[in-house]
Amino acid sequence: MTDSLIHHEELLVFVQEVLMKMGASKEDAFCVADNLVTSNLRGIDSHGVGRLKRYVEGIKTGYIIPGAKPVVEKESLVIANISAMNGLGQPAGVFGMKKAIEKGMNTGVGIVTVFDSNHYGFAGYYAMMALEHDLIGISMTNSEPLVVPTFSKNAMIGTNPIAFASPTKSEKPWVMDLATSVVPSGKLEVHDRLGKEIPPGWATDETGKSTDDPAQVLTNLYRGLGEGGIFPLGGEGELHGGHKGYGLATMVEILCGVISGANILRDVDFKGGNHPRVGHFFMVLDPSFFIDIDSYKTRMDDLINRMKTAEKAEGQSRIFVHGEKEFEEHDRRAANGIPLDERTAESLVGFSDEFSIDLQFFESK
Amino acid sequence: MTDSLIHHEELLVFVQEVLMKMGASKEDAFCVADNLVTSNLRGIDSHGVGRLKRYVEGIKTGYIIPGAKPVVEKESLVIANISAMNGLGQPAGVFGMKKAIEKGMNTGVGIVTVFDSNHYGFAGYYAMMALEHDLIGISMTNSEPLVVPTFSKNAMIGTNPIAFASPTKSEKPWVMDLATSVVPSGKLEVHDRLGKEIPPGWATDETGKSTDDPAQVLTNLYRGLGEGGIFPLGGEGELHGGHKGYGLATMVEILCGVISGANILRDVDFKGGNHPRVGHFFMVLDPSFFIDIDSYKTRMDDLINRMKTAEKAEGQSRIFVHGEKEFEEHDRRAANGIPLDERTAESLVGFSDEFSIDLQFFESK
Repeated sequence: MTDSLIHHEELLVFVQEVLMKMGASKEDAFCVADNLVTSNLRGIDSHGVGRLKRYVEGIKTGYIIPGAKPVVEKESLVIANISAMNGLGQPAGVFGMKKAIEKGMNTGVGIVTVFDSNHYGFAGYYAMMALEHDLIGISMTNSEPLVVPTFSKNAMIGTNPIAFASPTKSEKPWVMDLATSVVPSGKLEVHDRLGKEIPPGWATDETGKSTDDPAQVLTNLYRGLGEGGIFPLGGEGELHGGHKGYGLATMVEILCGVISGANILRDVDFKGGNHPRVGHFFMVLDPSFFIDIDSYKTRMDDLINRMKTAEKAEGQSRIFVHGEKEFEEHDRRAANGIPLDERTAESLVGFSDEFSIDLQFFESK
Repeated sequence: MTDSLIHHEELLVFVQEVLMKMGASKEDAFCVADNLVTSNLRGIDSHGVGRLKRYVEGIKTGYIIPGAKPVVEKESLVIANISAMNGLGQPAGVFGMKKAIEKGMNTGVGIVTVFDSNHYGFAGYYAMMALEHDLIGISMTNSEPLVVPTFSKNAMIGTNPIAFASPTKSEKPWVMDLATSVVPSGKLEVHDRLGKEIPPGWATDETGKSTDDPAQVLTNLYRGLGEGGIFPLGGEGELHGGHKGYGLATMVEILCGVISGANILRDVDFKGGNHPRVGHFFMVLDPSFFIDIDSYKTRMDDLINRMKTAEKAEGQSRIFVHGEKEFEEHDRRAANGIPLDERTAESLVGFSDEFSIDLQFFESK
C-alpha cells in the first residue's frame, strides 16, 4: 500500500472548495480547511482531511448548517456564551477563541463557551491562536459518546480533549493537545484504516472486555447502541487511575456542555440527522498580569530545556516536550508534502469527481 | 495491627494546638488542622494528619516560617499573584482562594496564584470553598519532584494535583481531586506504612524499571538523588498515554510555578532547610455568567444521575461520581471516629508527649 502525497496549499484550497460547493462561505470554508490541513501537517492524521467526508455527510444529512452564523447569547467583561446555531464547528470555534483573546487582552482573562455546535477539528488549533498575542490559550470540547466511565460498560462521555498552548522565548511554544481517553477515536480509525490490531487496555468490546479489534469497537459505537467503547486515560478500573481520566473527561463535559447549555453525554448524537449540539470551552490567560512577560517566557524556555536535557530512561534517546514532535513534522510535511492513506485519498478523489474540482497528487513514494 | 480511633473534633483541636506550640497563630493553625482532618474525614489518609510530622519538621528545620503573612505582589480586577512568604501552605491557600472567590463574585471569574509557599494539603479543600457561593472552584499546586517524565529515568515533576468542584441542586457537589500521576505519593506512603506491595506500573526503581516495593521508591526519591519515581497518569512510555499524564503535570507546573514565579521542577527542594517555594493556582467560575444558576445546577444533577444509573460493567454493582465516596466516608467517620494507622498514631503520641497536649484515642476496633 502506498501513500498519496499532496502539497498542503493545494490540499487546503481543495478542501475549502468542496465546502464552498456544500454551501459554506469562503471564510467559513477556510476555517475548516485550515484546521484539517494543519492537523495533517502536524502529523495528527486522525484529525486531518480524513474527517472531511463526515462534514460533507453532516451537511447533506442536515445536522450541520453550513450558512449558520454564531450568535452571542450572553456576554460580560470576561465571559461570553455563544450559540453556533448548528453551523460548522471550526468557524464557531475561531469566532469564540477570537472573542476570548479580545477579552484576555483587556482583563488578562477571557473565557468563552460555545453551544449548539459541531465537531470543531483539533483542539490545539484554537489554543495556538493565543500564542501570537503572547497569551496562554486553552481549548476543550465535548464530543459524541465514545468513552466508558469507570465500572460502566457503555460509552457515555466524549473523548473530550484538553489543549493548552503557552508562549516561549527562543523555544518552540509548548503545546499540549490530548484526548482524556487512553487514545482518541481517530487513532482507532487510523488502526482500522491500516488494518492494524490495537493493544489491550485501549478499548472494550460490547461485553466490557478489552479487545484488539478496532473495527469491532467502532462498529459497536457507531451502530447506535454505544455499547463498549474506549477506556478513559488510566485504563480499565481504578488500579492505574482510570477514574482520573473519567474525572477529567467529565470536567470537560461540565465546562463545555453543562455550563453552556450544549448537549451532554449520550444526547450528543448526530444519528438520524439530529443536531449533535456539542459545546466548546475557550480560555486565554495573559502571563503579564502575574509576572512580566519576558520573565514568563524565559522561565518557559528553562522548563522546556530542563525536560529535554534530563537523564534518559534505559533504551531511550530523547525526552519530548509537548508540541515538539508536531512542529518538526509540520516543517517536514510543509516541505515534502502530506502523505494520505489510501482510504482518505479515495474519499478526496470521490469529492473531486462529485464536485468537478481538480485534485493533484504527486508521485507516491 | 489495630487502628486507633479518634473523634474528628478532638483531632482538629490537637493538631491546631501542636501547630500553635510551633509558633503558628490560632487562625493559621486552624487552617492547617481543618485541611488535614477534613482529608482524613473524607477517607484520604494520604493527605491527613500523617503529614503533621513533616510540617513540624519543616518549621523546626526553618523552611516553613509559621508566622509569615501572605503579601499581594500583583493584583487586577480578575487576577492576583501572592507571595506566601514561605509560610504554611494552608493559610496561604485559604487566603488565595478567598481572594479568587471575591473576584469571581464580581466578574464571574477570579484567578489567583501563590508563590513561595509550602505543601498546602489536599487540593480539593480549596476547590470546595467555592461551593457555598454557587461557584465552580479549581485548585492546583506543584510539589516536590516525584514523577518521571515520559522517557526520562529521574523524578522531575510533582504529583501536581488538579481539583475541580461544582455546585449541584439536590445531588452532592461534584468534586474531583486527582494527582496527575498514576497514584499520589501518599498512596505509596500508605502502602509502605502498611507493609503492602504496590502493583506493577505505578512506579520505577532507580534503574527505570517498574517495582513492587514502595519503600525502595520512597527511599530513592527522598535520599536526595531523585532517581526513579512515580509514573505519570497513563503509565510507562506512550502506549497507554503516559505522555498525557506528563503533559497534564507540566500544565500544572506552568500554571502554579512558571506563571507565579514559584520554584519549578527539581528546584522544589526542602532538603538542607531550603524553602521549597512551591506555587498554587486557584480559580473560580460563576455559572450564572453563562446560563442561569438554577439551570446549571439542574443540569449538573442530570449529568450525575445519568452516570450513576448507567449500565454496569460485568462484575460491578456501582458507578461512582467524583466526590461521592468521599462524602459518604465523611459522614461515616464524622459519626464513628477517624481510624489512624499505627505509625500516624505513634507520631501523634510523640507530639502529645513533646508538647504536653492531651490526646485521647477511644477503644481500638
